[in-house]
Amino acid sequence: VRGEFAALIRLTSQLADSAPELRPGPGETWIGDDAAVVSTSSSGWQLLAADTVVEGVHADLSLTSLDDLGWKVMVANLSDLAAMGGLPDKALVAVSGPPHTDLDLLYRGIASAAACFTCPVIGGDLTNAPVLVVTVAVTGRVEGAPVLRSGARPGDGIWVTGPLGASAAGLRSYRRGGPPADPVDQALRAAHARPHPALPAGSAARLAGAHAMIDVSDGLSADLGHLADASGVGFRLDRIPVAAGATEADALGGGEDYVLVFAAPDAEAVRAAFAQLSPPELIGMCTEDPRERLLRGAPLPLAGWEHDWSGGPPEPA
Amino acid sequence: VRGEFAALIRLTSQLADSAPELRPGPGETWIGDDAAVVSTSSSGWQLLAADTVVEGVHADLSLTSLDDLGWKVMVANLSDLAAMGGLPDKALVAVSGPPHTDLDLLYRGIASAAACFTCPVIGGDLTNAPVLVVTVAVTGRVEGAPVLRSGARPGDGIWVTGPLGASAAGLRSYRRGGPPADPVDQALRAAHARPHPALPAGSAARLAGAHAMIDVSDGLSADLGHLADASGVGFRLDRIPVAAGATEADALGGGEDYVLVFAAPDAEAVRAAFAQLSPPELIGMCTEDPRERLLRGAPLPLAGWEHDWSGGPPEPA
Repeated sequence: VRGEFAALIRLTSQLADSAPELRPGPGETWIGDDAAVVSTSSSGWQLLAADTVVEGVHADLSLTSLDDLGWKVMVANLSDLAAMGGLPDKALVAVSGPPHTDLDLLYRGIASAAACFTCPVIGGDLTNAPVLVVTVAVTGRVEGAPVLRSGARPGDGIWVTGPLGASAAGLRSYRRGGPPADPVDQALRAAHARPHPALPAGSAARLAGAHAMIDVSDGLSADLGHLADASGVGFRLDRIPVAAGATEADALGGGEDYVLVFAAPDAEAVRAAFAQLSPPELIGMCTEDPRERLLRGAPLPLAGWEHDWSGGPPEPA
Repeated sequence: VRGEFAALIRLTSQLADSAPELRPGPGETWIGDDAAVVSTSSSGWQLLAADTVVEGVHADLSLTSLDDLGWKVMVANLSDLAAMGGLPDKALVAVSGPPHTDLDLLYRGIASAAACFTCPVIGGDLTNAPVLVVTVAVTGRVEGAPVLRSGARPGDGIWVTGPLGASAAGLRSYRRGGPPADPVDQALRAAHARPHPALPAGSAARLAGAHAMIDVSDGLSADLGHLADASGVGFRLDRIPVAAGATEADALGGGEDYVLVFAAPDAEAVRAAFAQLSPPELIGMCTEDPRERLLRGAPLPLAGWEHDWSGGPPEPA
């Protein structure tokens, strides 16, 4: 459970006392996972998620263009659906910002992501505010059972769907300024500015029988920690796949990679489900003792960016 | 079509060119109505809406307590569902604000509205920002066909589900300060601080065969104007029901009353559908000429608060 949801969880528990309609139904998952899961009148499950990007907190507009910002807030949401093994349906976009904001540029980025990942924007709101705040809410669906954070069991293999750290390394490159140093540097910047949600990989992991899954939005240490917390397991990691040009610290502590990490019992089933996709990498194993969090035998450094309300605003990027 | 949606509509048209999945399906309505209407895999329609409240733009925190603000952003959304003839399902709450914000107080107001109108909060996001920005997105449902803004026809009666202007008069009373002058003044303040979405009335209007409906969030003049614009009709109004203690100017130009205005062809059907509810009032008639907008034979004053992006921020409340 992420710190930022603690207040929302208090809210839900208050509500649950008042009426049965205000409690999750059988199979439903509300606050505390990547997306909320609600039953629909037909056979499937509907997924609902919302994510906000704030100028100066999540994005430095001197480094990030508005179309990239629009793209990224869409991707943050789509990645939440991917982490349940789901697919996107529709998006609502609520934009608050100063009157001089170049809305067309912002919407161009949103529209590109909407078209690229087939998640049309069907409504929203637009209001004035002293700083730019963009909230996207998405609906999605999942054919079978959604993959929660909480199902990992001791003995499950831990997999990641791609190398990590590219986004953090790309941000560092943007901060350094000037043109990209080489093709690797250029790829890192692209990974930061235009990340992709791992939608095919999320579906493949679900079909492979993954017990638990989360997207790496706050760094592998933090997000795998959330999965282990929710599942009540520990873990031992042998290796961290690091993107070319990034460091292991970027991989462990950098956010916004939108790679998925999942726990699955059957390595053969995983390899078969990913036959048409980039193969995921087995990085370790879930263990019995929830206090055990090891990387190559040593305690995993708990880096990562938690947008923690109580801790005050993050340093300006 | 509200001015604030113009940019979103541009976005959707850009998208519609790229792929059929990015165009509304049969019977669907996306941007431009109170809520978006999407088909579900089962028989019904799903409604989706989002609304944002920004400190200093929509709410003056020296006059509005955080629990009232939370209540009101929920009600703004629920009213959008009511205006389609629908009922609420679930809410997502995205809060951005300064670290010292009293989240428990804000959530208490949100939770009260969620409990009162049976719309549990099932997820959301929480981030830092220099000012408080609260976005709520809701899902809802409608059993039959949703009531759009665009279906009014010449000859339809125009009805409102209650007296207007109480919220604007209540805000004036709060600004005057001190304790409420009398019970009427107290009721006006309550109407401003704790408005109710007209959910039963919206369903009744749908069952009565209403051709078009909108909620009065920006003032009757502006909102009836949106309905007439979308329907391509004009109107003649004979009378405006004004809340006790409010003025006709409050009724025409004040926002946030969350009364519904609808156009319906059959007065008997309306009276029958509202048999168990406060009777709605017939205030005029839709006419052929879309340029005709009359109140008691004179041009309707076009007051109302449009949160118009291009016009710069509104005066601080």
